[in-house]
Amino acid sequence: MASIDTALLHQLMDSVSAVAATPEGGVNRPALTREDGQARDWLRKQFDALGMRTVVDPIGNMFGCLEFAGRDAPCVMTGSHLDSQPFGGRFDGAYGVVAGLAAASALREAHLAGRFKPTANLVVSNWTNEEGARFQPSLIGSSVYAGSLSLEDAYAVKDGQGVSVLSALDQIGYRGDGIAPKPRAYVEMHVECAPDLERSNKTIGPFSRYWGATKIRAAVRGMQSHTGPTPMERRRDALLGAAYIIADLREMVDRASDVLHTSVGRIEAYPNSPNSVCSDVVMFVELRSRDQGVLEWAEAEFRRLLVASSERAKTTGEILDVEHRRAGVFDKALVELVERISSEQGFQTMRLDTVAAHDGIRMTTVCPSIVVAIKSIGGICHNATEYSEPHDVEAGTKVLLGCLEVLLTG
Amino acid sequence: MASIDTALLHQLMDSVSAVAATPEGGVNRPALTREDGQARDWLRKQFDALGMRTVVDPIGNMFGCLEFAGRDAPCVMTGSHLDSQPFGGRFDGAYGVVAGLAAASALREAHLAGRFKPTANLVVSNWTNEEGARFQPSLIGSSVYAGSLSLEDAYAVKDGQGVSVLSALDQIGYRGDGIAPKPRAYVEMHVECAPDLERSNKTIGPFSRYWGATKIRAAVRGMQSHTGPTPMERRRDALLGAAYIIADLREMVDRASDVLHTSVGRIEAYPNSPNSVCSDVVMFVELRSRDQGVLEWAEAEFRRLLVASSERAKTTGEILDVEHRRAGVFDKALVELVERISSEQGFQTMRLDTVAAHDGIRMTTVCPSIVVAIKSIGGICHNATEYSEPHDVEAGTKVLLGCLEVLLTG
Repeated sequence: MASIDTALLHQLMDSVSAVAATPEGGVNRPALTREDGQARDWLRKQFDALGMRTVVDPIGNMFGCLEFAGRDAPCVMTGSHLDSQPFGGRFDGAYGVVAGLAAASALREAHLAGRFKPTANLVVSNWTNEEGARFQPSLIGSSVYAGSLSLEDAYAVKDGQGVSVLSALDQIGYRGDGIAPKPRAYVEMHVECAPDLERSNKTIGPFSRYWGATKIRAAVRGMQSHTGPTPMERRRDALLGAAYIIADLREMVDRASDVLHTSVGRIEAYPNSPNSVCSDVVMFVELRSRDQGVLEWAEAEFRRLLVASSERAKTTGEILDVEHRRAGVFDKALVELVERISSEQGFQTMRLDTVAAHDGIRMTTVCPSIVVAIKSIGGICHNATEYSEPHDVEAGTKVLLGCLEVLLTG
Repeated sequence: MASIDTALLHQLMDSVSAVAATPEGGVNRPALTREDGQARDWLRKQFDALGMRTVVDPIGNMFGCLEFAGRDAPCVMTGSHLDSQPFGGRFDGAYGVVAGLAAASALREAHLAGRFKPTANLVVSNWTNEEGARFQPSLIGSSVYAGSLSLEDAYAVKDGQGVSVLSALDQIGYRGDGIAPKPRAYVEMHVECAPDLERSNKTIGPFSRYWGATKIRAAVRGMQSHTGPTPMERRRDALLGAAYIIADLREMVDRASDVLHTSVGRIEAYPNSPNSVCSDVVMFVELRSRDQGVLEWAEAEFRRLLVASSERAKTTGEILDVEHRRAGVFDKALVELVERISSEQGFQTMRLDTVAAHDGIRMTTVCPSIVVAIKSIGGICHNATEYSEPHDVEAGTKVLLGCLEVLLTG
């Protein structure tokens, strides 16, 4: 049997964390920036060192292929993403890639020693723009891969400065022409981003369900005027309208029939001058729930309050675009496999819902797929202080290795 | 006597409006941008054409000197500013400079023809960064001139991209070394920016009083986290805190004992990613009143609500800096002069308060000073659709000319 080299695992985690490290202990690698490019270069070196063939597809997804069984054999895939939120944490995404590399190293060694006889190849993936921080939507790489987003539409997406995905890919040299491998199963390791494993004192959390999300870009339209002489009753202040909407959106949470998460994470104000009343504000709204009915109720409620709250500021609300991601379930057999392997290795498990999106959700339409959580201290995520303890980092990687051994020989 | 060449007046207004014109009919010339530089180059040409000596002082203020009485004679000054709000109106600022040029042309011609015998020189000024849109505070040029802001502090001011006033001045070539003339009186023409002249059907509005303003840069501090899995009750959302503050600040207006204007015109959110809860928000708050007591009450109220409203979002409020501009009065004799000249020319007047700041407010500490309004349709200002009718543009310039004739010979 194969076993994880924990020294290698931690060395890999440390070395990827040094790429675009922030003084606060996190990393700053938004998708397709120079820093994301550096992380990709780092990954390519690791693939080379492990004797894995590197494939880069047209949307920049990277695949390291360990071809145990010949280039045309079936494969099993693990991976995650190396892009981060602006000033995000070290583990979110990177952990899944590093765990895959450590598992690949262990399997390769066992195979060379004749202790492991796979019938399929292993692929470690790094998906483009999982985060959706610089470019919206999130999950661009895995969505193109899974066919839910066209390559043309993905290329045309622009960031806040007007730079397109296509030109950003070319700038860092990661628009490839490789053919992406299609696996027979996908397992993704990730930090939990919520406090449930820690609260329950469990180690491994296979996600059995994923929440749905509705992402809305909404605008408030007012009128630019002078913040001094313009009489208060004549102002049509788009930022005031947005403030009412943000406050009322938070209040919706308390009226929902099941758990609902709402947020406005990004705001753009125009002309954003201290002494001009804002004419236009754009807000990036998210609604998330495990219950599709609640999600639909929330969208209807938001559409209603967008009108009503805007009117209080003599402004008008407008929906610019809406993205729906339905709630769903991960592969039941894979959930049970994770539970069985964890139990054999002495780790306690707990089935979880993932509220955050992961590339593994897109993979559910391609093959049996699962995302597995390890403990995240305080449930802190998208923050430089995000942290998972070394023994949990090791535990997750050992469970991944056990699952891959089964899937590669099954 | 001198008389305004109205064709020249409108031609000047049209030609300055063509500098950085926007498709909506306004101009986009924030202070010390390339476009502001172009407007300055335009002005220098007009000074040359009128035989005026151009002086540029170290903060970039421009003075066109028509030296009727020799370089060392006393002078009378008129002027305003050519910088604009982002996508602002054509008249705000530019009208005062253009009216000064048209009056200078008329006086020069009368002098050459022997019909006008001044005892003082005429100076037309263009003050640096009146608007305060790109650089805060506003009125930087006239504040340095009047001694209420040091040149060193003014140079060190940075815009939102970190560019300093010093380096922006050097970039457009308008850091001068000239010695600014000191006048014995200052008269500034401006569009009203409020609807009072239009409502009352009056033509000329000498401002007799100016409102005070308290400008506060305040921050809300929360914690960056994931907009998905982070439980709602654990979020510390700085944008939600800011929304509560913006809504409560508006509500203060209705509780004030005298008229109070409040606004948040600019907001900066960090990290401003759609799927991260904001950790920090900075707001540019303004409080304005004609009553110093109301202004002090409003600042105390704002400090109280900054704490209370932040707490509702589990965030904390913080004052970053505060600028106080006290309410005050313009020179009484100049108000009466404007009324007398207007009456002689058949224009009805109405004494007004100015809520907006003007360079003429800074000039009150240098010499007798006044700002005079002409009608602005709908009171619209800081907006591309800002408009003053040709006959009002002419009326104000004629009144300015009459005042200058008195002041230059008195």
